[in-house]
Amino acid sequence: MIIMGVDPGTRYAGYGVIKHEKQKTNVISYGCIDVHKKKNLVDKIGTLYDHISAIVNEQKVTLLSLETPFLYKNASTFLKLGYVRGILYLIAYQNDLNLKEFSPREVKQGITGYGNASKEQVANVIKRIFHLKDPQRDDITDALGIALCGLWTQKK
Amino acid sequence: MIIMGVDPGTRYAGYGVIKHEKQKTNVISYGCIDVHKKKNLVDKIGTLYDHISAIVNEQKVTLLSLETPFLYKNASTFLKLGYVRGILYLIAYQNDLNLKEFSPREVKQGITGYGNASKEQVANVIKRIFHLKDPQRDDITDALGIALCGLWTQKK
Repeated sequence: MIIMGVDPGTRYAGYGVIKHEKQKTNVISYGCIDVHKKKNLVDKIGTLYDHISAIVNEQKVTLLSLETPFLYKNASTFLKLGYVRGILYLIAYQNDLNLKEFSPREVKQGITGYGNASKEQVANVIKRIFHLKDPQRDDITDALGIALCGLWTQKK
Repeated sequence: MIIMGVDPGTRYAGYGVIKHEKQKTNVISYGCIDVHKKKNLVDKIGTLYDHISAIVNEQKVTLLSLETPFLYKNASTFLKLGYVRGILYLIAYQNDLNLKEFSPREVKQGITGYGNASKEQVANVIKRIFHLKDPQRDDITDALGIALCGLWTQKK
């Protein structure tokens, strides 16, 4: 089982890919796709699609795990997050992946046992589980947390 | 200049393709992509992407024209419209199309001369301009109106 968690934004998108076999879960890839310097939203969306599609193919991902966004005060930001999620749905369709979604609260609850945990608490647990060195970007540790939630749902 | 206007929804997406040459503007294709029976959002998004990409290629579209959604009371609907728009942005990126966006008010104002016009008024003007027979779906006449707005912006 190979699971990709994505914490998508329109400036940076953190991702983490974990592999579960023989009772063990390891991180096989992680990083942050930086599109904040792209000149317009069309280029941002296209670049994110190309990068994420490439990782899905290279790592032979079987499950895509996402966080459900809540409604921001800023409707325009919320809509743009929808754009990014649309291409993630398309990648799931094109690669025949399962897709799981979790609310921010479910991710925090799943990882730390506490639904109101801070990003830092989530990051600390993730770094401990996967023996990741400091410092790590929040969007990467979040993405790995989202991937782990996906794994746990599949195992149930 | 070949312009595709899209009135995207997560159940039906109306589209209209117009061609402008030698001072004349004609409709070369129009229709409605029906995805309301697809079993989940991944299939809806994938099917819309496949259909719209195919039309863009077949008709050699050069400009994609869209309506900017306003924030619905229902945040979930608003987010899903974002998904559909994300794949339209991706199609623009992959086919090197120009992309123009108009508010519903701009479309109504452009077509009927009145920003608060009803869908029916827009439909009547569009049917008259393009000699379309009755009945026509609102999402198709809207899409043709959006395409016309795109044309007028390019001509300026």
